[in-house]
Amino acid sequence: MKSCKKTDYRAVELTGGFWKAKEDLNRDVTMQAVYDRFTESGRIDAFRCDWKEGMDKQPHFFWDSDVVKWMEGAAYCLSRKADAELEKKVEDLIDLIEKNRDENGYFNIYFTVVEPEGRFTKRGHHELYCAGHMMEAAVAYYEATGKRRFLDIAEKYAGYIKSAFMDGTADVKPRFVTPGHQEIELALLRMYRATDNIDWLELAKFFLDSRGANEIEALGRDQYTQSWLPVREQHEAVGHSVRAGYLYTAMADLAFETDDEELKAACRHIWDDIVSAKMYVTGGVGAVPSGEQYGEKFYLPNESSYNETCASISMMLFAHRMNKMELHAKYADVVELEMYNGMMVGLSLSGDAFFYQNVLELEINDLGAGGGKHTTAKRAKIFECSCCPPNLNRTLSSMGQYFYMWDEGDVWVNQFGDSVLSDGGIKVTQKTDYPRSGKVEITADGVRNLRVRVPGWCKSFTASREYVMENGYAVFAGEGEVTVDFGMKPTFIKADDRVRADRGKVCVKYGPVVYCAEGIDNDGALRNLYFDPANPEWEIEACDKCGCMKLSVNGWRKTEAAGDELYSELDAKFEPTRIKLVPYHIFGNREICDMSVYLLYR
Amino acid sequence: MKSCKKTDYRAVELTGGFWKAKEDLNRDVTMQAVYDRFTESGRIDAFRCDWKEGMDKQPHFFWDSDVVKWMEGAAYCLSRKADAELEKKVEDLIDLIEKNRDENGYFNIYFTVVEPEGRFTKRGHHELYCAGHMMEAAVAYYEATGKRRFLDIAEKYAGYIKSAFMDGTADVKPRFVTPGHQEIELALLRMYRATDNIDWLELAKFFLDSRGANEIEALGRDQYTQSWLPVREQHEAVGHSVRAGYLYTAMADLAFETDDEELKAACRHIWDDIVSAKMYVTGGVGAVPSGEQYGEKFYLPNESSYNETCASISMMLFAHRMNKMELHAKYADVVELEMYNGMMVGLSLSGDAFFYQNVLELEINDLGAGGGKHTTAKRAKIFECSCCPPNLNRTLSSMGQYFYMWDEGDVWVNQFGDSVLSDGGIKVTQKTDYPRSGKVEITADGVRNLRVRVPGWCKSFTASREYVMENGYAVFAGEGEVTVDFGMKPTFIKADDRVRADRGKVCVKYGPVVYCAEGIDNDGALRNLYFDPANPEWEIEACDKCGCMKLSVNGWRKTEAAGDELYSELDAKFEPTRIKLVPYHIFGNREICDMSVYLLYR
Repeated sequence: MKSCKKTDYRAVELTGGFWKAKEDLNRDVTMQAVYDRFTESGRIDAFRCDWKEGMDKQPHFFWDSDVVKWMEGAAYCLSRKADAELEKKVEDLIDLIEKNRDENGYFNIYFTVVEPEGRFTKRGHHELYCAGHMMEAAVAYYEATGKRRFLDIAEKYAGYIKSAFMDGTADVKPRFVTPGHQEIELALLRMYRATDNIDWLELAKFFLDSRGANEIEALGRDQYTQSWLPVREQHEAVGHSVRAGYLYTAMADLAFETDDEELKAACRHIWDDIVSAKMYVTGGVGAVPSGEQYGEKFYLPNESSYNETCASISMMLFAHRMNKMELHAKYADVVELEMYNGMMVGLSLSGDAFFYQNVLELEINDLGAGGGKHTTAKRAKIFECSCCPPNLNRTLSSMGQYFYMWDEGDVWVNQFGDSVLSDGGIKVTQKTDYPRSGKVEITADGVRNLRVRVPGWCKSFTASREYVMENGYAVFAGEGEVTVDFGMKPTFIKADDRVRADRGKVCVKYGPVVYCAEGIDNDGALRNLYFDPANPEWEIEACDKCGCMKLSVNGWRKTEAAGDELYSELDAKFEPTRIKLVPYHIFGNREICDMSVYLLYR
Repeated sequence: MKSCKKTDYRAVELTGGFWKAKEDLNRDVTMQAVYDRFTESGRIDAFRCDWKEGMDKQPHFFWDSDVVKWMEGAAYCLSRKADAELEKKVEDLIDLIEKNRDENGYFNIYFTVVEPEGRFTKRGHHELYCAGHMMEAAVAYYEATGKRRFLDIAEKYAGYIKSAFMDGTADVKPRFVTPGHQEIELALLRMYRATDNIDWLELAKFFLDSRGANEIEALGRDQYTQSWLPVREQHEAVGHSVRAGYLYTAMADLAFETDDEELKAACRHIWDDIVSAKMYVTGGVGAVPSGEQYGEKFYLPNESSYNETCASISMMLFAHRMNKMELHAKYADVVELEMYNGMMVGLSLSGDAFFYQNVLELEINDLGAGGGKHTTAKRAKIFECSCCPPNLNRTLSSMGQYFYMWDEGDVWVNQFGDSVLSDGGIKVTQKTDYPRSGKVEITADGVRNLRVRVPGWCKSFTASREYVMENGYAVFAGEGEVTVDFGMKPTFIKADDRVRADRGKVCVKYGPVVYCAEGIDNDGALRNLYFDPANPEWEIEACDKCGCMKLSVNGWRKTEAAGDELYSELDAKFEPTRIKLVPYHIFGNREICDMSVYLLYR
């Protein structure tokens, strides 16, 4: 079977449940909160390009990207629901971009007002990364509103970049070949699909082919930017995790578009490297705070997991492209893991505060253990480097893209939640209270084969109709209704014992949702709690904070004779107790307290 | 009671048992092995000072110190037993020092042949550290042989250093005030006691008073060299662990000699900081490989414990000075801990190979986890920076210094082993097979009060005579025989649960000896072994490799369904097994295999 072509958020309406609530929260609260913080911090006004030496709020070289990611999110919101005020904010920003770009179409705030002589000379200064995000925003706005102005601006800019970097015909000769922070590659491929202009595919291919392969790059051959090897020879995930995720996404995208078998193989190797040894149980990636990087295989400490929210989002992008290419449910499993855990933990329940670093274990008396400048116990309203909040804006407003894929009558149901897919003659409807239960009713019209992902975590799948399993999907022939049940139940999960930090410990998942204990629910230190997996006696009830369940389970509390000696004779007593667990993604929404995903067991 | 003044290795003869065997091994094997490696590496010939640009084996700025520490060890060996060949080696080196020093008495190989213009300009280049070690060697050689030549050389050099750094009257104006690597301070205090020349105490005091306090030091106020605060304001152990240990030793020494209460208080604070939060169960200190430094409180990871052998030796020096000052057994407890564990692990059973870094957990497939350039599974014959081997030479040849303190008829028995203390009318004899058992027979003549340390690990002390407890010592009045028994038995030890790495785990001690499991004795991965403390069924037998016992104990081996997934459903089975343990200090003497001090328990 050839790869599946369609995964368009515009064809999918979320009609209820967990993700509809998040879509609404993002539209009603998060979008405005991010815009307000960006206004206060000077990011919005920076688009006026009137900053001068001596003024405060000097634009940073990544500010453009923060705001255009918000614009991309705004476009998705507008595609769902008209909002004149929101549209005016976007139009005002497009006005400023149009006005302040140069005659070649070049637009970059920092290299216009702070370092105007620096254009295309500083590989580490996010110039093409900002451009790439602008292209994504322009495509999204065009698709949402039908208005071409922003897309024209982006295409003109892309043409100038092509003339400079690929054709060598521009007025400026770049001092580097590939961007220090990837993003433009995947953006160009997206713009290629939106415009059918082959130039953008070719420029993306040029950047990907040049990475780690070009002589001029001698100075930039590092793992941090994944420039250590030509991309087709890269078989391990290394370096800065967001750079990596955006690169791997573009690689998979180009491999898919061009049927490049060598590139596909590299993507598969990198994928396997991540999911077999470098990903947290939450989907978090990029274990190492220093450099926000991937660590060695099985190096996955809990108290200092870096796990940038953007890195989880980049894993969703990569996984989704891999699924389009390979049509295997295992990729959608990882999208789901990120959705409910690695990505979602980044946003407060109130919708206006954010984690940048996402640790799996937090002791409020030992915050330094997190090791990163973004280690906190409480979500923040904005960060100096505030990439994650608008990344959540654009992701939560376009979640429908991850729910379905379809191609000539075949429909893949990848994610679960109340929703309707409509495209041409195809109509698929889901009714479910997932992830509170694993039961999903699906109605399919105009469908030849309905392919329903059976999650990797599911151990007891049942369906109301006959099916065959194929690549992790239950395939139901023809139209009609089907009810599936994934038999959701709380499960103790262990890590491969090469993960030193998790030895002797387990965590709990309920379906795709990873749980944690918070100190506020479990009086006293979490480090003295042990699960009792032989005799759990689960209690499960709907969580009033989110569309998940909360759990309680048998455990033990270890008590030891008080003493102030660093080492002393073992004198532990284990008293039975109940351990209360909440979804990991909602931790840190009450008063500041300890949190741990993994606990010891006995 | 005032502090105790006498702790002279020359008055103590080891007559049998563990430490006599190590003294003999050092004299018969280790001394020659280190000398041979130093010859091969060019360190011995470097004393000719005839290296020129373009030749190989360029002298390193710490080479002097390596060799003079060996000379100090040689002096102790000579004090015990005449050895013309060994004495000639030392005399030849003294000849070279005498010949190649300048007219001021200055001697430093590196700053004579590599960078002759650099004298006293490079704080980080170990110049005064090398000088200090030469002073220690000179004092030792004088005390061992009665020959003054080397001591005269050292005193002349010390006088030149005083004129340069303290008096400002030398031909060279130093570009720093205090040395970047401490050592000279404690060496000067030692030379003061050997010569009664108050200049050396004053120069030591000058260096100590200046550290972290001198305006000129603005560039050098770092934690790494403990120059962040004036020493009397330093209340935490920070920075490079060997620098720290030598500094704290000198601080305690000066405080003792001058009755400086403020300095005594600083020493006590630093001591408490180390033993309450920064010392491994083995006595190892300096947890952090990067910079060989102390980490934050309770940061004590096992697989990457740096725990330089020299740092354990420096802790013995510091603890011993603290004991002289405070007369409390708790300091001798730490000396003992270092003796049997942190220090002794540094030497192979064969006597000719060394650990520099001492991890508490080793997985041979994951050596990178050690994090240091000195992480190995096997002891090495020499290191590029080879400070630890000659530090063992000088320590193992003078262990008697740690056994007794005495003062006007009071004798403190600090360490246990067959030995005789004779000084004036005092004679104390020990007969014991410690640390195989805790029974010690002591005969005391010419003694008013015999003060026998009751180790902190001892929970059931018995004695054949009446005693009173004072500062951790059992005090027996008058002369005669006494038999004490410390009730040695295997004990499970837990760390304060703020030590993240040790949660859910225990280790085993038998008396002062810390145990470990080696893969070779416990087929399969150690990470799947659990102790069963509720039902240990200890077996204890004499170890044929050393003067300790080896142990076996009930445990569990966890088995899990094979699978290649990073995360999977808990499916653990626990089969009863026996766990074999050997003293930590003898690990890594057979084939390369995994090792762990701590194991999980259930």
